[in-house]
Amino acid sequence: MPFIRNAWYVAGWSRDFGDDLVALTITGQTLVMYRTSTGEVVALEDRCPHRQLPLSKGKRIGDTIQCGYHGMTFNGQGKCTRVPGQDNLPASAYVDAYAVHERHGIVWIWMGDPTLADTDTVFDLPEFSDPAWHAHQGEGLHIEANYLNVAENLVDPAHVSFVHPTTLGNASSENVPVHVSTQGKAIVAWRWIRDAPPIGFFQKFGGFSGNVDRWHYYYLHLPSTAVIDFGSADAALNLPEDDRNKGVRIFALHFVTPVTEDYTIDHWMHLRNTAVGDEAASGQMDAMFKIAFAEDKEILEACHAEEKRPQKRKPIRIAIDKGPNVYRKRIRDLVEAETTEDLGEPVAPTFIQHE
Amino acid sequence: MPFIRNAWYVAGWSRDFGDDLVALTITGQTLVMYRTSTGEVVALEDRCPHRQLPLSKGKRIGDTIQCGYHGMTFNGQGKCTRVPGQDNLPASAYVDAYAVHERHGIVWIWMGDPTLADTDTVFDLPEFSDPAWHAHQGEGLHIEANYLNVAENLVDPAHVSFVHPTTLGNASSENVPVHVSTQGKAIVAWRWIRDAPPIGFFQKFGGFSGNVDRWHYYYLHLPSTAVIDFGSADAALNLPEDDRNKGVRIFALHFVTPVTEDYTIDHWMHLRNTAVGDEAASGQMDAMFKIAFAEDKEILEACHAEEKRPQKRKPIRIAIDKGPNVYRKRIRDLVEAETTEDLGEPVAPTFIQHE
Amino acid sequence: MPFIRNAWYVAGWSRDFGDDLVALTITGQTLVMYRTSTGEVVALEDRCPHRQLPLSKGKRIGDTIQCGYHGMTFNGQGKCTRVPGQDNLPASAYVDAYAVHERHGIVWIWMGDPTLADTDTVFDLPEFSDPAWHAHQGEGLHIEANYLNVAENLVDPAHVSFVHPTTLGNASSENVPVHVSTQGKAIVAWRWIRDAPPIGFFQKFGGFSGNVDRWHYYYLHLPSTAVIDFGSADAALNLPEDDRNKGVRIFALHFVTPVTEDYTIDHWMHLRNTAVGDEAASGQMDAMFKIAFAEDKEILEACHAEEKRPQKRKPIRIAIDKGPNVYRKRIRDLVEAETTEDLGEPVAPTFIQHE
Repeated sequence: MPFIRNAWYVAGWSRDFGDDLVALTITGQTLVMYRTSTGEVVALEDRCPHRQLPLSKGKRIGDTIQCGYHGMTFNGQGKCTRVPGQDNLPASAYVDAYAVHERHGIVWIWMGDPTLADTDTVFDLPEFSDPAWHAHQGEGLHIEANYLNVAENLVDPAHVSFVHPTTLGNASSENVPVHVSTQGKAIVAWRWIRDAPPIGFFQKFGGFSGNVDRWHYYYLHLPSTAVIDFGSADAALNLPEDDRNKGVRIFALHFVTPVTEDYTIDHWMHLRNTAVGDEAASGQMDAMFKIAFAEDKEILEACHAEEKRPQKRKPIRIAIDKGPNVYRKRIRDLVEAETTEDLGEPVAPTFIQHE
Repeated sequence: MPFIRNAWYVAGWSRDFGDDLVALTITGQTLVMYRTSTGEVVALEDRCPHRQLPLSKGKRIGDTIQCGYHGMTFNGQGKCTRVPGQDNLPASAYVDAYAVHERHGIVWIWMGDPTLADTDTVFDLPEFSDPAWHAHQGEGLHIEANYLNVAENLVDPAHVSFVHPTTLGNASSENVPVHVSTQGKAIVAWRWIRDAPPIGFFQKFGGFSGNVDRWHYYYLHLPSTAVIDFGSADAALNLPEDDRNKGVRIFALHFVTPVTEDYTIDHWMHLRNTAVGDEAASGQMDAMFKIAFAEDKEILEACHAEEKRPQKRKPIRIAIDKGPNVYRKRIRDLVEAETTEDLGEPVAPTFIQHE
Repeated sequence: MPFIRNAWYVAGWSRDFGDDLVALTITGQTLVMYRTSTGEVVALEDRCPHRQLPLSKGKRIGDTIQCGYHGMTFNGQGKCTRVPGQDNLPASAYVDAYAVHERHGIVWIWMGDPTLADTDTVFDLPEFSDPAWHAHQGEGLHIEANYLNVAENLVDPAHVSFVHPTTLGNASSENVPVHVSTQGKAIVAWRWIRDAPPIGFFQKFGGFSGNVDRWHYYYLHLPSTAVIDFGSADAALNLPEDDRNKGVRIFALHFVTPVTEDYTIDHWMHLRNTAVGDEAASGQMDAMFKIAFAEDKEILEACHAEEKRPQKRKPIRIAIDKGPNVYRKRIRDLVEAETTEDLGEPVAPTFIQHE
């Protein structure tokens, strides 16, 4: 399936971009990115239009890039500023430039038409700037799988009991039904597991020993940003669904970036209403997340490899697939809209009148 | 060429299968195999019908397998016994199950229609249960080559002089003609090298110092089980062909299992009428076999790689190819029979009468 | 693009060929080469016509090769001399033999029709046998790139300033225009950089400290042999172009051999009019050449990888591309001539007269 181009994807954390040229690939497009002397991150097509050497093999001259083969030079807007050996700069001497937006330490890139890139639509949450919440960036998890399978996994609470039995799930949730609805452009899948033993994560970070009420809310924003709102509270409180802030609450964020059809990077981080300012706790949580995400990676890569093999039968769908099914449907609609929107006005048929 | 499916292939030795889930591939089909609590070995299609995760990535729950992604569970007959999150079990929730038969410490699998799997047709020899003979299992030799080339090599005595000059052959046999005939469903290629120095193998295990009569009988049973009856006797005895049991006699068995078009496993073992009960001798023979089989592997992999390259001319056939030629012909006939047998009754043409 | 077959390519240095069988690939054709007892180097198709084992996996029996599978034997002309197990030698039992010519320690092979192989057309220079000049063989640089890109780089002086800033070029030449002309079958690109600081190479080997006049003449002989005549002289001499022998002058030779579409070996060596007989200087020069050629290799492999990726736009051509453009045009003409020359006489159309 084609990628959705007119969308913001995460290229990396702010800390990933500085003076050096960084080569990366998003939606199959190779990019060279760097931070200019004014602090702005720029992203260019990573291929010199002359002999096609990746510009990331060249070097920075001020805020421009000089190609490493014959010295052709481009500025941060992709415009050629020098062709050694000649005075004129041909109109065809340019590289594509991409819209970039940086916020909360996250660098977003718009892979489609830059004139459509509206920074108001970049994903945001009020908790990023709420002093009662702590934000902590993790890493980028590299997965040899299609991004749709990675994103689908993030609107699928049912896998947690089986894939993460020691960290994020346990047997108590195996048969608890999943609710699915949509909230504007987001898909939400959730369930509460009431009055059950705490999972490993909250034994460690909630200090719970007795039974808890536990919730998982999976919000998936098209095309591929997920917020997993999960937490626990003492079962004695019988916490109402809307009072989750009274429990220990964590937002695990996943920015799922398609690299190629077969490769995805999941930049993960979290926001939490506990242990604010405690970086030791951040490190311990990261360690636990890494165990869980390595479990996802193994499953997702094995499924991806199987999808590449011949199939005797069409895969079946079951009750817990409601979230993934809605997600796939919306992605197909978005792809269809993008691939047809440039066709222009419908052509009126011409009738030829026969005598 | 398609694989022959309605046939018994060796999946492994009995010792290879226990409580753990074993993933393997035969005739291009991925399988998960394990031994149930009643001691029976079962073989299932290694792909969950839901999200296609290999079931071998899951875990055993009693005699069933629970998928590692969403917990869908299958018994040893491939029938789904649980779908977490719902009560009904859809009819499409199953995996294929394969017929398995275990005998003499060897596990056989029938890759085709299980209703055609007749255990009376599993390869056998009376010497397996003859106390005057000693059976010793070797290993599984992995070869990056098509199984037909591996099997063809086992009805081709002529290669021994050139590929195994220090172990199983020597120069005395280079020009001795090969006889080929068929015995029912088996192809037999053989030759006697009379009154010649013993080969390395029988210098060591026969205790021969003077000249010997040496024989090689290659029996190839379709699709790919080989018995190489070879041995030596003092040349002074002038041994008749049917008195081979009076010499030192070994049956080298090769169970050639197609994994993919480009990968084959040769499970090898031997039966012998000498050194019965002497496991030190078994180890010494295995060491010598391993030298010889590594020589075959090198040749077969190099030929396979060449077959993948473009060819300017069709390969030529020479006199010593009679055994391989008969084998290829019979394989083609079997494949043709399998691929056409499901076409049903010929359809009678319909004539439309015009006025 | 198809390879040019009716041409001499360098298979290796004389020191590379002896008694042992050497397997190599040129223009996509696998070859086995060895030196016979009379000192002649022979080259045969590296594939037995019987079961396709590479003959290089066999062994020499005198001046013949015995196949490692069934002992079929071929002489240095590719003629079969033995088929074990039969007396007659079938006419189809042969391998192709290629014309080989050895001169100045270099082994050339003609990949096309041997009857067209004219040793008078093997590349030569009078300086190979001039006692005032010193010849020194380097190595074979393996490059994962198409040979046309490698050869094009050798008629492109403009890349030197950017790819080799510390060894063979420096910033003084960045904007000096390149002249291009043709001399018979060779393409020549050259420029003089007058009254400028010496490059690293001539600081070391010319003993220059003040400004020099520096020249680069790139001669590219079809299909892929390059002579780079480069040197320096004290700027005070204001050296005329034809008096280059009065300066420190080096001919860097590159014999570019296509292995496959994606792999090339560049056998490089040099001739020099300085430090004659001084092998320590040879070693020091090689060390500097290796730095520069590793820089070329990195660029060429990155360009080749990019050429394999989908292209949104056609690459652009700029002023400095004149040499490469002429080269590409001549190669296309040669390929077209080779691929059409065997079509024979045009077939006269047949007219059928209707009543």
